[in-house]
Amino acid sequence: MDQMMMGAMSKDMMSMPGMQAMDMSVMQACMDACSACEQACTVCSTQMMDCAPACMNCADMCNTMMRSMMRMQGMDSASMMAMLDACIAMCQKCMDDCMRHADMSEVCKMCAQSCQACMDACMAMKNMMMAMS
Amino acid sequence: MDQMMMGAMSKDMMSMPGMQAMDMSVMQACMDACSACEQACTVCSTQMMDCAPACMNCADMCNTMMRSMMRMQGMDSASMMAMLDACIAMCQKCMDDCMRHADMSEVCKMCAQSCQACMDACMAMKNMMMAMS
Amino acid sequence: MDQMMMGAMSKDMMSMPGMQAMDMSVMQACMDACSACEQACTVCSTQMMDCAPACMNCADMCNTMMRSMMRMQGMDSASMMAMLDACIAMCQKCMDDCMRHADMSEVCKMCAQSCQACMDACMAMKNMMMAMS
Amino acid sequence: MDQMMMGAMSKDMMSMPGMQAMDMSVMQACMDACSACEQACTVCSTQMMDCAPACMNCADMCNTMMRSMMRMQGMDSASMMAMLDACIAMCQKCMDDCMRHADMSEVCKMCAQSCQACMDACMAMKNMMMAMS
Repeated sequence: MDQMMMGAMSKDMMSMPGMQAMDMSVMQACMDACSACEQACTVCSTQMMDCAPACMNCADMCNTMMRSMMRMQGMDSASMMAMLDACIAMCQKCMDDCMRHADMSEVCKMCAQSCQACMDACMAMKNMMMAMS
Repeated sequence: MDQMMMGAMSKDMMSMPGMQAMDMSVMQACMDACSACEQACTVCSTQMMDCAPACMNCADMCNTMMRSMMRMQGMDSASMMAMLDACIAMCQKCMDDCMRHADMSEVCKMCAQSCQACMDACMAMKNMMMAMS
Repeated sequence: MDQMMMGAMSKDMMSMPGMQAMDMSVMQACMDACSACEQACTVCSTQMMDCAPACMNCADMCNTMMRSMMRMQGMDSASMMAMLDACIAMCQKCMDDCMRHADMSEVCKMCAQSCQACMDACMAMKNMMMAMS
Repeated sequence: MDQMMMGAMSKDMMSMPGMQAMDMSVMQACMDACSACEQACTVCSTQMMDCAPACMNCADMCNTMMRSMMRMQGMDSASMMAMLDACIAMCQKCMDDCMRHADMSEVCKMCAQSCQACMDACMAMKNMMMAMS
């Protein structure tokens, strides 16, 4: 995400109750990983029917996850945690489906890597939030 | 959802492992409730800043939930359960934010009702899936 | 779209400059056709690689078109016209791709019909808007 | 967009009829500008009701534009041109609404700049495509 916009967004977020301790770099990394994963899954969804449905599901969920973090005023920690769990689950499913034929397709292999990176970033978000509460 | 398309979709789904026992009318009700909730939240997101971020989050999540059910090939029961939990959590947050000023706004009141209906439909989906496993 | 929500939305829209002459039933039909087309395209995108990319594009555009009509405060007539043209073009492309093998697939045939219905509804919207100006 | 994924996508696209002359760097710049504009508009949509509806519309359209370029198999040049026109029109409307109070809000000012950049990138795409035909 753009650095200046991130700065403005951070200022807003710091004024929300319970958010002062948020490490914004962890959140930025999570939004960026969601964005990259949405893009990889969207390209991958045009490749073969084996993984396309999981890729489309994952692309939509990653976009919804990213946008929700950009609109933190519309979440609380309980819903944030549930969203992160759902995003991790969809990335896992998409990675599994893509890995099954990753040796046949360069795109599917890259998509699986983006899913793994997104899962890791969502997990880091969860850990940070648990440490905050 | 259109009845004929629902019929064709059901045929597909019945051939997927573990899906034969799915009550398609519960799933159709859930997809319809997600669609109605996305629409109500989208209209409501133009009304006042108090609830707009939660409404936008909820609209995006309901759309992603609906689409994922239409692409069941790209989910397994674990990810489906996590998605339903996340959708319920976002509807709850949106309903809470809208109810706070529902006596001032007809739209917010209707939006809160759509959120409640969507939560109920997602819960019915979860119960059916737990009974199946 | 839900009748009561449509009523509340209409009241809002009637207070916007240049919108008093809008026939809300034409707009409602257009939003409903966009919603139905998004759903048909989403199901159809899981069927075969020949039409899946066009179906996904069309599903996204129909959803964006529907939402934009629900947030008319964020459009003017010029952008509305451009959006309707783009939605018609994406429905046309999706219909063409699905029709090529409609005799092999019940879902693709229904998807093509939804695309045609959505194009017709968008065209009716355009005609109404041109008559208004 | 990720460089390696962009490379794989380019290879696919070069095998499509009429796409051999496509300057992929212009397309990549356009997808990146759409992504940045979606993010800026999403943050901006939480700020004030004056521009929020236009920001949400623009965010959805930029996402749909970006995804459609990533699924070029599902577009032809006519629909691509119509999509670019619609994206430009939505960016223009969002920029106009945000500029009206850009001196009061740092976020709205940055959002307007992202809209301008996205319009420029879409215009460059159109010019390249016209030169190709």
